[in-house]
Amino acid sequence: MRVAELSRRTGVSVASIKYYLREGLLPAGERTGPNQADYGDAHVHRLRLVRALLDVGGISVAAAKEVLGVVDDEHVTLHDSLGVAQDAVMRRSEPLEDEAGARAEKVLDDLASRRGWRVSPENPGRRAVVDVLATLERLDHGEVGGLLESYAAAVEGFADEEVGAVVVEEDRGRSVEGVVTGIVLGGALLLGLRGMAQENASRQRLV
Amino acid sequence: MRVAELSRRTGVSVASIKYYLREGLLPAGERTGPNQADYGDAHVHRLRLVRALLDVGGISVAAAKEVLGVVDDEHVTLHDSLGVAQDAVMRRSEPLEDEAGARAEKVLDDLASRRGWRVSPENPGRRAVVDVLATLERLDHGEVGGLLESYAAAVEGFADEEVGAVVVEEDRGRSVEGVVTGIVLGGALLLGLRGMAQENASRQRLV
Repeated sequence: MRVAELSRRTGVSVASIKYYLREGLLPAGERTGPNQADYGDAHVHRLRLVRALLDVGGISVAAAKEVLGVVDDEHVTLHDSLGVAQDAVMRRSEPLEDEAGARAEKVLDDLASRRGWRVSPENPGRRAVVDVLATLERLDHGEVGGLLESYAAAVEGFADEEVGAVVVEEDRGRSVEGVVTGIVLGGALLLGLRGMAQENASRQRLV
Repeated sequence: MRVAELSRRTGVSVASIKYYLREGLLPAGERTGPNQADYGDAHVHRLRLVRALLDVGGISVAAAKEVLGVVDDEHVTLHDSLGVAQDAVMRRSEPLEDEAGARAEKVLDDLASRRGWRVSPENPGRRAVVDVLATLERLDHGEVGGLLESYAAAVEGFADEEVGAVVVEEDRGRSVEGVVTGIVLGGALLLGLRGMAQENASRQRLV
């Protein structure tokens, strides 16, 4: 199909499609003339995925480019794709090196060892948690950091199911796409449900 | 203290401080001369909070302005502050009106009624969940949406503790600041721990 038809089928403007092509989020179509290319169903699907990551998942174009690069690179294993996708979507701020940071590292290492979690020091989630815990202490909002154990118990309850859900035997591409979708959209799903449960809890306590 | 001292104590540049003052994220200091103002400890604290929300929580300046407005407005109750803070940080995309959207609404209403959650139709989390579920169906990644029940059980396990943690008797300002901090930084904490637990689960399944 031509680009106009691709736009009609996906509801994405031709200008946006051209932008995604330039940014490498969408692979080029098959060239059929000097100013013309042909697109297939794979482009329709990829375009929907790009819009889902950007509009619903709320990640940046740069982060989307990184995670889609993992989907396309057959040399990245399913396990490694998890780390790369996490890295692309998690916040990276320059951590301060102070006592609060050192204490946060210690608290988190103790938690991981008590729960028997094997996690590499470079895990993007680990880095984020250290940063948040130290920030909460510096802000004197330790009560939020006090939820650490409850959050850890909660994520432990579904992490194995999350990994299992995306593994499709013999189809690396689909599995990796599931990892990426799961990290970005699954994260939005989890936070949305948390918002609902918080309103319900707040109604019972505060209204 | 002068702005230079405020900058030194917080590690935030004078240019950034002036930007936050212009944007209304930081209240003006007490004017002591035509080009001079005096800042106090409350400014130091507010500046740390602003940086935490932006750099660690990853929210936009516009969203930070909204949530800080709730902290400052004594007419907003603690229960209402939760909704406003959620609204400021959750993704808003224009939902498509199609069958996938209608099915997602139905699935979510069934879940809430089965779990006895009392949640208003305007809850920002509810809106986000409907959007994500419909998007996952359109993308043919229903396996991620299949985690809905497990996520719901998980958030139910800590929502009441989250609300209870931030309530400080007779101190509305501190409680609301806790709500805001909890929603933004607590969310980052939860997603970071999820990343750690996922690596651990993936190691056991896939390595």
